[in-house]
Amino acid sequence: MNGAESLLRSLTGRDVEVCFANPGTSEMHFVAALDKTPGMRPVLGLFEGVVTGAADGYARMTDRPACTLLHLGPGLANGLSNLHNARRAQSAIVNIVGDHATYHRRLDAPLTSDIEGAARPFSDWVRTSPSADTLAVDSAAAVAAACGPPGRIATLILPADAAWSQVRSENGACDSAIVPTTPARPSDAIVHAAARILTGGEPTALILGGRATRQSALACAGKIAAASGAKLLAHTFAPRVSRGAGRVDVERIPYPVDQAIAALDPYSNLILVGAKPPVSFFAYPNKPSTLHRPGARIHELVPVDGDIPYALEALLDALDARTAQARLEPLALPERPTGAIEADKIGTLIARALPANAIVVDESITTGRNFLSVSRGSRPHEWILPTGGSIGFGLPVAAGAAIACPEQKVVALESDGSGLYTAQALWTFARESLNILTLVFANRKYQILRAEMRHVGAREIGPKAASLLDIGQPDVDWVALARGFGVEAHRVHDMDQLSSQVDRGLAARGPYLIEVVL
Amino acid sequence: MNGAESLLRSLTGRDVEVCFANPGTSEMHFVAALDKTPGMRPVLGLFEGVVTGAADGYARMTDRPACTLLHLGPGLANGLSNLHNARRAQSAIVNIVGDHATYHRRLDAPLTSDIEGAARPFSDWVRTSPSADTLAVDSAAAVAAACGPPGRIATLILPADAAWSQVRSENGACDSAIVPTTPARPSDAIVHAAARILTGGEPTALILGGRATRQSALACAGKIAAASGAKLLAHTFAPRVSRGAGRVDVERIPYPVDQAIAALDPYSNLILVGAKPPVSFFAYPNKPSTLHRPGARIHELVPVDGDIPYALEALLDALDARTAQARLEPLALPERPTGAIEADKIGTLIARALPANAIVVDESITTGRNFLSVSRGSRPHEWILPTGGSIGFGLPVAAGAAIACPEQKVVALESDGSGLYTAQALWTFARESLNILTLVFANRKYQILRAEMRHVGAREIGPKAASLLDIGQPDVDWVALARGFGVEAHRVHDMDQLSSQVDRGLAARGPYLIEVVL
Repeated sequence: MNGAESLLRSLTGRDVEVCFANPGTSEMHFVAALDKTPGMRPVLGLFEGVVTGAADGYARMTDRPACTLLHLGPGLANGLSNLHNARRAQSAIVNIVGDHATYHRRLDAPLTSDIEGAARPFSDWVRTSPSADTLAVDSAAAVAAACGPPGRIATLILPADAAWSQVRSENGACDSAIVPTTPARPSDAIVHAAARILTGGEPTALILGGRATRQSALACAGKIAAASGAKLLAHTFAPRVSRGAGRVDVERIPYPVDQAIAALDPYSNLILVGAKPPVSFFAYPNKPSTLHRPGARIHELVPVDGDIPYALEALLDALDARTAQARLEPLALPERPTGAIEADKIGTLIARALPANAIVVDESITTGRNFLSVSRGSRPHEWILPTGGSIGFGLPVAAGAAIACPEQKVVALESDGSGLYTAQALWTFARESLNILTLVFANRKYQILRAEMRHVGAREIGPKAASLLDIGQPDVDWVALARGFGVEAHRVHDMDQLSSQVDRGLAARGPYLIEVVL
Repeated sequence: MNGAESLLRSLTGRDVEVCFANPGTSEMHFVAALDKTPGMRPVLGLFEGVVTGAADGYARMTDRPACTLLHLGPGLANGLSNLHNARRAQSAIVNIVGDHATYHRRLDAPLTSDIEGAARPFSDWVRTSPSADTLAVDSAAAVAAACGPPGRIATLILPADAAWSQVRSENGACDSAIVPTTPARPSDAIVHAAARILTGGEPTALILGGRATRQSALACAGKIAAASGAKLLAHTFAPRVSRGAGRVDVERIPYPVDQAIAALDPYSNLILVGAKPPVSFFAYPNKPSTLHRPGARIHELVPVDGDIPYALEALLDALDARTAQARLEPLALPERPTGAIEADKIGTLIARALPANAIVVDESITTGRNFLSVSRGSRPHEWILPTGGSIGFGLPVAAGAAIACPEQKVVALESDGSGLYTAQALWTFARESLNILTLVFANRKYQILRAEMRHVGAREIGPKAASLLDIGQPDVDWVALARGFGVEAHRVHDMDQLSSQVDRGLAARGPYLIEVVL
């Protein structure tokens, strides 16, 4: 057995079952080993940002790591942007990067680069496995590191000769138990301090981060809110929010700084539940970077890598509120909007149409800014957001979510600007017959930047600036692109067309794309 | 005047005239300053790999730096792969990366990352300019660093508050002379040692690297070869080779290891002219990593950052060979091939059709492996190769070359696999009406990897491996993709169709794409 087979055995033995891959020559032994070692499903991405984004989507839906397979420094580099999002989402990923044979590196062949150096800014754990015999234990350590807490990016670098050399041990796998660290629980003192804040009569908000916006944690937070009158808030870009009828609603802090400050202004206390203190996404001249009310007290109930379910349950007990009735959203489906296409109407249509257990991957940027407010009474669903601000997260994450949850409909809400960073994901949709309805909102602009130009004080947008903010001239034909990648696609110009196309797309088994011309 | 305007003045004052850009919020002041500061042409790429690749192509054709504009760590990350190629090509690039305001970084907002850390493995020079007042001098230093020798990647990180704050000095520009380092000249002893090798009667090859494969250096090397009987060789992936009728031909070392070793086997002496010793692109089990004949003597005439033109002239003088007659290629245009499409026939057609002064950007991988051998008698042209092995270099580099040389026809030879990493470049072709004929060779496979699987010892390719090596199911429709990005495109199935489409594409003023189905 060679190192690559040993690595695969070690991964599949730890329930890593999907490998999102874009391999090259140095990874050929890993690729060959896939047919000799059962249990690993390879999924090809035509670009590495698709690979890492898909691993992120898979982790957000399963809380387990997939592995990637990337080709040396440049292949890793192409995947870093979506690793950044994944890391900010606390997604578990075992990021495998092939490298030259160990003895070949010193020759500085053309593809040589400092892979560890490139990986480190976007990884929580980086290790180069020096030989076939170290791969089993190093990959076990990588899986443990990826599993966190919280979910983390573990980059394992695989030299070609480590992959192709024979292992000396009998079974090649690592049998020793390398287990993830147990998340820390807050002390009774911290829990009771939070309870005192909640019963102190001052306006208080719970800021829910990480997995605190999942259904069971939300149910608990909802009881705390019911018993104490506290507000439940989430960061603007939460990794995944369980929403819809029968769930506890959590409002997200708005993206525009002024609105965010207004949203937090009522609260003299913020209790952080697996969340960091809210800060503005960008800095702006003459605006604050922190969003909480000046003088507000910030109390960390549980850190981002702590035991969030325990902390919420303990707080519920400290409040003696187990029997409190959380406010659950009633099913409230709006009417289908008609007439000309407008952003708010699109949100209303989506809110009505979402099937039960849908997974919404939302990179709709400006078009979708109000989508969440109207869909709180939709059928129960999961909503996934771009946690790290890297553009091009949506389509790849949708691919990974669809592979993780083949029985659930994925709805990808994409902007024409952001979708173009990783449009190659559409091919993986087609190759794997993924159950994804994609809506592309085509305003032919980086609309968010036109707004940001005003926020930074540029009143008039000159022709050179306009050439960098508008993506028309020529307009991108998303229907042609999607068909080019093998995905059925249609263009719509009014709400009736959109409504009927959404019905068709939701009924389709496999990928379907609608270009929504704004 | 704010920092962004000061930066732009400093750049344009040093003849940096093109900015390939994909900006975000933190770069809005730079974008606004473009309309206030004359002399900088902005060119939008829809993906950062297009931006950095275009800067590479521009530098290869002008030997001057363009600047980029990228958005924080993830935007930089998306551009790193083509920076890797550019660095290996010794291309001069001033790589500008926006960052959060300096005071905002400590808050760890979602887009925060270690930008310097991410840039360093792919840059020769990295600096964060801390304030508006430092931008003029820092950007002057960046231009100097980029200009080398040889051409280098200089990454300048631009915090948002440095861009938006007012500068204190009067004119905001840096008037002090920060000039590139002068390249070192080899000593007389080194030159005469090379001359003694050449006149010693043993078989000798000159390995020409960097700018030694440009027309004037080649003319000199050709005289040396004529006087001494030495062979002229270039690395497999040279940055740019001047070729065709009236030029001195230089053979490239083949890519496959066994062929490379055979090509170097006759030579007991290698003289390095701005080149590193030849090594294999990848390591393979039981094959050597170095390619020269065992015991061969390797003599460095001039290092990669040395004064190559001086070194060649000095060597010519030491050989007393100024009047030697270099062998210049005669014009030799092959007949147009007909019938079924085959790789060799495509090469023959290209060799016949290339117009004078064409710029060929070659990412044809397996299909084009023999293209260079048949085109040595074509009309004079420049041939550009992927120096660092990063995939997705071709279309972006073609864009930059076309912007650098609007009067020359660019011919992009692209593979269907590699072209998909950065196909967004086609939109920039259309936006800027670039004079580029693109041929996409569609074999629906990562054909090079199928061959590499055999080289690494995998005789049978199982179904899982095949799913990662074949990019059919579904076939990508390049005609649809190109049209989706606004580029006229046609598909051909035989040589007659290809021949007539190539004529039309060469006659077109603007972008034109042909999908060549293999």
